[in-house]
Amino acid sequence: MNTNQSSTDQSNTNPSQSRYERGLEKLREIDGKAGENVVAALADIAPDFARYLIEFPFGDIYSRPNLDLRSREIAVVAALTAMGNATPQLKVHIHAALNVGVTRTEVVETIMQMAVYAGFPAALNGLMAAKDVFAQPANA
Amino acid sequence: MNTNQSSTDQSNTNPSQSRYERGLEKLREIDGKAGENVVAALADIAPDFARYLIEFPFGDIYSRPNLDLRSREIAVVAALTAMGNATPQLKVHIHAALNVGVTRTEVVETIMQMAVYAGFPAALNGLMAAKDVFAQPANA
Amino acid sequence: MNTNQSSTDQSNTNPSQSRYERGLEKLREIDGKAGENVVAALADIAPDFARYLIEFPFGDIYSRPNLDLRSREIAVVAALTAMGNATPQLKVHIHAALNVGVTRTEVVETIMQMAVYAGFPAALNGLMAAKDVFAQPANA
Amino acid sequence: MNTNQSSTDQSNTNPSQSRYERGLEKLREIDGKAGENVVAALADIAPDFARYLIEFPFGDIYSRPNLDLRSREIAVVAALTAMGNATPQLKVHIHAALNVGVTRTEVVETIMQMAVYAGFPAALNGLMAAKDVFAQPANA
Amino acid sequence: MNTNQSSTDQSNTNPSQSRYERGLEKLREIDGKAGENVVAALADIAPDFARYLIEFPFGDIYSRPNLDLRSREIAVVAALTAMGNATPQLKVHIHAALNVGVTRTEVVETIMQMAVYAGFPAALNGLMAAKDVFAQPANA
Amino acid sequence: MNTNQSSTDQSNTNPSQSRYERGLEKLREIDGKAGENVVAALADIAPDFARYLIEFPFGDIYSRPNLDLRSREIAVVAALTAMGNATPQLKVHIHAALNVGVTRTEVVETIMQMAVYAGFPAALNGLMAAKDVFAQPANA
Repeated sequence: MNTNQSSTDQSNTNPSQSRYERGLEKLREIDGKAGENVVAALADIAPDFARYLIEFPFGDIYSRPNLDLRSREIAVVAALTAMGNATPQLKVHIHAALNVGVTRTEVVETIMQMAVYAGFPAALNGLMAAKDVFAQPANA
Repeated sequence: MNTNQSSTDQSNTNPSQSRYERGLEKLREIDGKAGENVVAALADIAPDFARYLIEFPFGDIYSRPNLDLRSREIAVVAALTAMGNATPQLKVHIHAALNVGVTRTEVVETIMQMAVYAGFPAALNGLMAAKDVFAQPANA
Repeated sequence: MNTNQSSTDQSNTNPSQSRYERGLEKLREIDGKAGENVVAALADIAPDFARYLIEFPFGDIYSRPNLDLRSREIAVVAALTAMGNATPQLKVHIHAALNVGVTRTEVVETIMQMAVYAGFPAALNGLMAAKDVFAQPANA
Repeated sequence: MNTNQSSTDQSNTNPSQSRYERGLEKLREIDGKAGENVVAALADIAPDFARYLIEFPFGDIYSRPNLDLRSREIAVVAALTAMGNATPQLKVHIHAALNVGVTRTEVVETIMQMAVYAGFPAALNGLMAAKDVFAQPANA
Repeated sequence: MNTNQSSTDQSNTNPSQSRYERGLEKLREIDGKAGENVVAALADIAPDFARYLIEFPFGDIYSRPNLDLRSREIAVVAALTAMGNATPQLKVHIHAALNVGVTRTEVVETIMQMAVYAGFPAALNGLMAAKDVFAQPANA
Repeated sequence: MNTNQSSTDQSNTNPSQSRYERGLEKLREIDGKAGENVVAALADIAPDFARYLIEFPFGDIYSRPNLDLRSREIAVVAALTAMGNATPQLKVHIHAALNVGVTRTEVVETIMQMAVYAGFPAALNGLMAAKDVFAQPANA
């Protein structure tokens, strides 16, 4: 098995940047405040996990070039709505979606569509989460 | 409570068209063959369900104007990958995504991203489903 | 494919009634106050979704003649208990079950049975939801 | 805490019968062949588990008097359809439902209703499972 | 089928003890206070369910000799984290894990590992549950 | 926020080794053949995903020192059994568990225990997966 991988790293447009640095940058672009909140919440219980969260989801995945951030956030809002068991993260990503250019209407349409795939309860609970996020002063 | 709803029907750009007719049209635009297959499979066990499936998901939801089909199919591929228990439908929608202009690369990126939200098994099984769909002659 | 569907509409015992009107009537029969609450909660974020919720679940599905309301509510209480991620809707349907003639004992038996299919946590959390509903003054 | 429990055992209408014997009897009443199949399948890997399966679900839960078998099987078919990840057991219970007096129409109505609570994929896959069970010679 | 099962009962090292008595003993060894809390919470709604919970999980399963309690609690913490819809029970078992000798570090490692199998949201929510449990005075 | 993270990297006992190399080594220690199979299966559809799978789960998580491999594999077998929608990965990890010193009996006990937390169907399907793995010639 080939052990030399750095040449296939699609997320690494700046080889002098570490995965952590690239992840921090991407997280700030998408939803900086939420990222800092999670790191703070994990500081005393699992600081390594905050590091993994910045490195893998943001440093590796979100930094990849071939799917735009708007589509990525629509995908996550849809998935977390369908899963129905991660309301805190769904709220973070509804906020992130607005931040990268998804309109409120598009967020609501995405969540409503999940009634078809995961049922009306999942969609209803997703809409209530969106209602909470839209009501926050910073999102007025 | 207001009982006159037709004026708020965002999916109804052609009022002389029934929900079923509108749904059939939208289903053919997105993935006609799969739609006919499902209707046929349901014919002897639950024909009414085939009708609901065409009327509500396609006649009501997919016909709504404020979220494009490309985004809608990215959302469904993400959700069904994350749910991990609806492989036949995931394959139908991977095919539908290609049909409405989502590239293979974008389908693969969407599924890979689900490793963050639903775990590596969900993403792996989604990638194997995509592999099957891509291998079908009609999709070569 | 046949485009003329109205003759197979099993829920339409009164053809002059719209799906919305039929749905409203059925919702009031099952649990009117909860229905009004949901419509109100959705008014500013997704009014169309309130309409779909009345038209499809209640106008189409619950209006169908071949399964009685008591069995339908037992089925929903069982499913939402097993799913474990829709507690608000589970409480609504525990209340609806009582409303259509399912006894408290039968509600509790249904939820307990879910320990076999979805585990003790799902059943325990369902019993705690039932406990909340039973304690409400209107249900004394 | 009170350690004397036998006086509150609602399932024990025949105190000289063990939970296992009561469970075997109930299992045969509901779906005997399936029960024997499961016991045989577990014989070389986990025989104790076959015993628990007969004792707890059937000896304890299904033997309880206050919810009829028809309602219990409707509840299970609904729950397993909604969960979407237990197709072998769903087929066993569709067969058991027919066995205790639930009609094919009622089985199909129960599964269709799950489109509202768990989405169209779950309901579709449940209908395909029912189609398989209905096609078996013993169920013609 | 053999109806004489007591000879294969691996959990019964003391035949004069009922399953309930054995279960109570095991529950106290693992997490007595939580057990009493659950019994009390169920007293007025489903006392039989409290009995089943003591008899089957603790009297039958946890009393079995071939897997140590430390491994059993690691298994449960992992499973409930991955399921993501049973936070009250996850907290009970994080506490129970500490009680039977799993260190805080090992609890955190188990939960973090679930990011691979069920996604980062499941792991994050599990870590927040652990944070709550660790902060309780009795666990300082 | 601190951008210098390498000093807190608990998995990096050999700083000259890349995450990929460390991951490959750990994967071979746990279940080499399965790892090569997954990389091969992904080669034409998503080779980057094979790299992430080796780097994050194995290079980062499984290489961490404070939870032994035997406990880690018990945790995964439990979680995948409870989730019920990742049978291919469950089989891989049952095999991996045997490989790192978990006995067949311990694997079976872990899966049986999941009947309490995720229901009898999940446990039954897990036992059938174990039965398949145990029957493979390499595991005789």
